[in-house]
Amino acid sequence: MTSKLILLRHGESEWNAKNLFTGWVDVDLNEKGVREASHGGELLAQEGLLPDIVHTSLLRRAIHTSYLALDKADRLWIPVKRSWRLNERHYGALQGLNKSEIRDQYGEEQFMAWRRSYDVPPPAIEPDSKFSQFNDPRYADIPADERPLHECLKDVVERMLPYWESSIVPDLKAGKTVLVAAHGNSLRALVKHLDNIDDQTISGLNIPTGIPLFYELDDDMKPLVPGGRYLDPEAAAAGQKAVASQGKK
Amino acid sequence: MTSKLILLRHGESEWNAKNLFTGWVDVDLNEKGVREASHGGELLAQEGLLPDIVHTSLLRRAIHTSYLALDKADRLWIPVKRSWRLNERHYGALQGLNKSEIRDQYGEEQFMAWRRSYDVPPPAIEPDSKFSQFNDPRYADIPADERPLHECLKDVVERMLPYWESSIVPDLKAGKTVLVAAHGNSLRALVKHLDNIDDQTISGLNIPTGIPLFYELDDDMKPLVPGGRYLDPEAAAAGQKAVASQGKK
Repeated sequence: MTSKLILLRHGESEWNAKNLFTGWVDVDLNEKGVREASHGGELLAQEGLLPDIVHTSLLRRAIHTSYLALDKADRLWIPVKRSWRLNERHYGALQGLNKSEIRDQYGEEQFMAWRRSYDVPPPAIEPDSKFSQFNDPRYADIPADERPLHECLKDVVERMLPYWESSIVPDLKAGKTVLVAAHGNSLRALVKHLDNIDDQTISGLNIPTGIPLFYELDDDMKPLVPGGRYLDPEAAAAGQKAVASQGKK
Repeated sequence: MTSKLILLRHGESEWNAKNLFTGWVDVDLNEKGVREASHGGELLAQEGLLPDIVHTSLLRRAIHTSYLALDKADRLWIPVKRSWRLNERHYGALQGLNKSEIRDQYGEEQFMAWRRSYDVPPPAIEPDSKFSQFNDPRYADIPADERPLHECLKDVVERMLPYWESSIVPDLKAGKTVLVAAHGNSLRALVKHLDNIDDQTISGLNIPTGIPLFYELDDDMKPLVPGGRYLDPEAAAAGQKAVASQGKK
C-alpha cells in the first residue's frame, strides 16, 4: 500500500510582498495569498485528493492557508495537529529587515549564504528585539535553551525530522491522506529528507506558494516519483522562478 | 484550583437568516455571523480570557466561528479537537424546511414540541434525502446503526456527555482554559448538565450567537456562578430574545 502526502506552502504573506525576511514573525496572508490558498484547495478538490488529517506550523499564514484550502475541498472537519517544528526557518537578526537592503549592505555572497547555504545561520536575534518571539506563549513548551534565536536549513532539518517521524509518518502508515501546510524552508527540509537531496543541491530547490505538491510514498516512506508532482506544474515552475529571484532588483 | 470554560455558539448562518431548520446541514456563516464571531474573539482578548485549546463540532459554521474568534484573540496556534458529538441537534425531516411554514402547517403546539420539548424528536429523515448527511464521509466513524436520523435534546445530551467527560473535562483538569465552539442545542445540552437544569426548565433557555459564555468550575466541574457569565451581558440578553422568537411572525 502506498501513502499519500500533500505539501502546501502558504500563500503570499504581507511581508513576502514587501520583500522582508519573516521567519517566525506571525504575519498573515495578503489578498494574493488568500487567493492562492483557496486555489490550492480547488486543485485538491479537482484531483479528488482529499486530506484525512492536516498538520500545520504555529504560524497564522500556514494555519490560514490550511483553513482556506480545506474549506474549498470541503474538509474543514478533519483532525488538526500543529507544531512549532513545522515553523518557517528562524531568520534571527534578519527578521523584519528588507531583503534587497540586506543584499546591498552585505553583498550578494553573504546574502545568498544566509538565504541558501545549508549550514550558515544568520546572526542571532536579541531575545527582547521587537521581532523576536522568544517570550511568545505559543513557544512556552520549548525549553528556553532549545528555543531558536536563528537557524540555518540544517537546524530546520534537525528540529523538523523528529516531528515527521513521530507524528506524520504514523498517520501515513495508518493509511491517511496527510496534508502538511507549512513554509518554504520547513518544506524544503522535508523534501530534502524525502528525496535524499544532498546539502549542496538543496540550495537550488525552491517551493512555490499555494500549489499542492503530491507525493506517493512506499512502505519505507520513499517517493515513488522523485520530487513528487505539483498539481499545477506550469504555475509551480513560474512560482519557483519567482522565489529564486527574491531580493534581486 | 478552578477551571475555565468558554462556550461560544456560532454566529448567524446563511440558514439562520432564512429561518430554515439547519441541524446537520453544513451551512456557512453569513456576513453578520462573521462579524459576530470576530466580535466574540475581541471580547475574549479584552477580557484576557485566552483559550489554551479549542473543541469544535464537525460543522463549518462552528469551525469558521472558532477560526475568526481565535484569530482576534491571537490564539490560532492552539491545539484543536473536533467531534460530531458537539454537532447541532439533528433536525431529522425538518432539515432544510422553513420554520414559519412548519409552524403554520403543524400548528404552534407541535412546532414548539419539535423545537423545545426535551424528549420529542422531529420525524426521521430519509437517509438518501438531499438534506441527509447519512453518507457524509465525516461521519463514517459512527457505526451506521448509531448515526442519527433525528434527535431530541435528550438524544443530544446522551451523545454529547461522553465527549464532555472523555475529552473536555481532562483538558480542564489539566489546567487548560478551554473554548468550546458549537451550536445552540449542543451548548444547551452542556449547560443543562453543568447547571443541573431540569427537563422542563431547559426548554426556556436560549443561547445567543457569538457571545462567549464563561464558566468557572470547581474540582467537581460545578459552576462557581450558576449560569456562568456572558462577556457582553446586554448583547446576550437581546440575543436570547431573538432566538426565542424564531419562527414567529
